Amino acid sequence: MTRFEPRDPDWEDRVRGSFARQEFMEYLGVEIGHLSPGETDLVLPFRQELMQQHDYFHGGATATIADSAAGYAALSLFPPGIGVLTAEFKINLLNPAIGERLVARGRVIKPGRTLTVSRSDVYALNNNSETHIATALVTLMSIETLDD
Amino acid sequence: MTRFEPRDPDWEDRVRGSFARQEFMEYLGVEIGHLSPGETDLVLPFRQELMQQHDYFHGGATATIADSAAGYAALSLFPPGIGVLTAEFKINLLNPAIGERLVARGRVIKPGRTLTVSRSDVYALNNNSETHIATALVTLMSIETLDD
Amino acid sequence: MTRFEPRDPDWEDRVRGSFARQEFMEYLGVEIGHLSPGETDLVLPFRQELMQQHDYFHGGATATIADSAAGYAALSLFPPGIGVLTAEFKINLLNPAIGERLVARGRVIKPGRTLTVSRSDVYALNNNSETHIATALVTLMSIETLDD
Amino acid sequence: MTRFEPRDPDWEDRVRGSFARQEFMEYLGVEIGHLSPGETDLVLPFRQELMQQHDYFHGGATATIADSAAGYAALSLFPPGIGVLTAEFKINLLNPAIGERLVARGRVIKPGRTLTVSRSDVYALNNNSETHIATALVTLMSIETLDD
Repeated sequence: MTRFEPRDPDWEDRVRGSFARQEFMEYLGVEIGHLSPGETDLVLPFRQELMQQHDYFHGGATATIADSAAGYAALSLFPPGIGVLTAEFKINLLNPAIGERLVARGRVIKPGRTLTVSRSDVYALNNNSETHIATALVTLMSIETLDD
Repeated sequence: MTRFEPRDPDWEDRVRGSFARQEFMEYLGVEIGHLSPGETDLVLPFRQELMQQHDYFHGGATATIADSAAGYAALSLFPPGIGVLTAEFKINLLNPAIGERLVARGRVIKPGRTLTVSRSDVYALNNNSETHIATALVTLMSIETLDD
Repeated sequence: MTRFEPRDPDWEDRVRGSFARQEFMEYLGVEIGHLSPGETDLVLPFRQELMQQHDYFHGGATATIADSAAGYAALSLFPPGIGVLTAEFKINLLNPAIGERLVARGRVIKPGRTLTVSRSDVYALNNNSETHIATALVTLMSIETLDD
Repeated sequence: MTRFEPRDPDWEDRVRGSFARQEFMEYLGVEIGHLSPGETDLVLPFRQELMQQHDYFHGGATATIADSAAGYAALSLFPPGIGVLTAEFKINLLNPAIGERLVARGRVIKPGRTLTVSRSDVYALNNNSETHIATALVTLMSIETLDD
């Protein structure tokens, strides 16, 4: 795994601050797990309101944390004053999203001045086991004019 | 645009029934707009809880309705007793998702016995204008053993 | 369908010149069909060397013309001196690619200063019928420093 | 990395036989590198005919080996008599594809009865260095009625 050097000494405050301003994260109940340069884990505990018709986590909830984990992994490597937007992502749903909580592990594959590519792998956690329920590729864009 | 013939005379009841059982749809405030064989429009009114850090609709909320609209467009063409699961999707975010509400227009491109491919286009509605904010390609899978 | 205004009066010469320098296009036998601002059709006649193990056009050949048609549709709208690179694409293969020739119809969905999003639909042509064999979403990037 | 058990004792002969019948592979000059259950590496040596206008390997050539490596990785795990088709794939181009040869490393992420998901990472090799030039997610479908 590549190790990345952050270009903003305050990268962690920026990521946590941006996350705290995302009302959708709070509404779903998403929490930050792990943070390091180029890496973000987001955790989504089970709530009945997040389910689809078969009582799995809805694919949209899974996609939301996959996208956000990838985006914060990217933002952690950006210079000061540069914000992040998702340009696009693709996600494969691999197994039913059944569990006490989901964790999305976002990892930067290729940092770039304009575009950064991250992957996210999402796991369902139950007792002591984890099941790989989704994998995503995400293209993030650096934005000069946006606060993150 | 291709016209599709439904294979289940009760297709509309099935789609509405499945939608009503998706708690995540209700939690976000998603409503059914238009329904016809191979076509589903889903509407997501503005709520502050759905926003990201720049006060746009969160990409995850946009992706959720894009995926679901594509899935119900597919389900409307399935035979009785066959359920639907999203295998994967890809979404491009085209413009900031700012508006009074979003509408996702899911349309079947290619129905199939095992896999159905749909597209979804998402628009932000403001007064009398609409802005194209996202486009998605979605692969849906027919499932024999699932209630939808 | 949106009508686009080209920003380079010589857009057609640039597209044809760039295409002529792509040796891979010549090696596969790709020809330009239709060109207009924001639109490019590329045609790939049947050759046994392009087949896969079931004697369909190889998915890689289909993807090549889908990607290139989307890229030239984008380039046709770029200002003078700006080149194009594919950032990423996604393609769904819908039907067996059997026919006398394939045509990929690339159309710009959303032009942009940095990123342009195009779609490509690929059809197999036989006598007087056409079959929709693939659909793609393509993200193109503007590059200041490259000749196209 | 997960270890997979092949379900066909003749998996290697099947993969090599199917590869040998793909005329497009021979036309581009693709060679099999590594094979093991759930893993396929394909190698594409430099040829001027594979270049695009900036003298990089064409994205279509890169996509072709990414798709095929993912597909053969999947096929290696299929039971006897079941063939493979690509349902869809998505590829991100990460760096210019400049080098003496490309290698696409296809790895199964999730095997399945109907759908298998693989990833492919493509590297450009130069002297003793390798550059990560593309990453792809590929959905493969099992087909009962096809010879592979």
